[in-house]
Amino acid sequence: MPFDPASLRFDDRGLIPAIAQDHDNGEVLMMAWMNAQSLAKTLETGRVTYWSRSRNALWAKGETSGNVQDLVELRIDCDRDCLLLRVRQTGPACHTNRRSCFYTALRDGDETEIMQPEPGSST
Amino acid sequence: MPFDPASLRFDDRGLIPAIAQDHDNGEVLMMAWMNAQSLAKTLETGRVTYWSRSRNALWAKGETSGNVQDLVELRIDCDRDCLLLRVRQTGPACHTNRRSCFYTALRDGDETEIMQPEPGSST
Repeated sequence: MPFDPASLRFDDRGLIPAIAQDHDNGEVLMMAWMNAQSLAKTLETGRVTYWSRSRNALWAKGETSGNVQDLVELRIDCDRDCLLLRVRQTGPACHTNRRSCFYTALRDGDETEIMQPEPGSST
Repeated sequence: MPFDPASLRFDDRGLIPAIAQDHDNGEVLMMAWMNAQSLAKTLETGRVTYWSRSRNALWAKGETSGNVQDLVELRIDCDRDCLLLRVRQTGPACHTNRRSCFYTALRDGDETEIMQPEPGSST
């Protein structure tokens, strides 16, 4: 069945959540949002572009930092209201220079940092 | 640092997206939503409870099907507006009886089912 982006269930702001997962090791890197335009750009270029809710603008991931995400495969969930992006991540995904944005774990009721910023990488 | 759920950034509906990931193999199983109450119940019981936006009620995952999610570790992203639930999933996570809700992949412009429903499991 040909993929029709209009068949996705964008929310009332025209957005859909997109989870980026490292294609090679399965690590969940980040969650951000897409609109129809950013999804189209992602599919057209093979590089992930999100929609920045704070800037209200397209957000070509890694455009300034070089920490780009190359799309390996797009997956859609059963409700068609969430996307899973299987990516190859260059450098850290997180703006804190950590590999993943999910670097804080709850252990015994305490927040614990389980990842350190990568040395030598720029934000 | 002790975890304070009030420090999370719930959206204007009081919700936060929660990604469930298989702790053993890294597979992303589903994405759903939590509010403060469902998160508290999840942490208290060790079993994942979401918030159903359609039913506007707590949704104890697997309560009727038996396909429960046992929480191994909760992780929080850098912006504190998304949760990653590392879980042990009993049976399929998806209501279609597939292991993951992300069973549709986009390949060469076509939607392709990459997972089959598990035999013998109930919804």
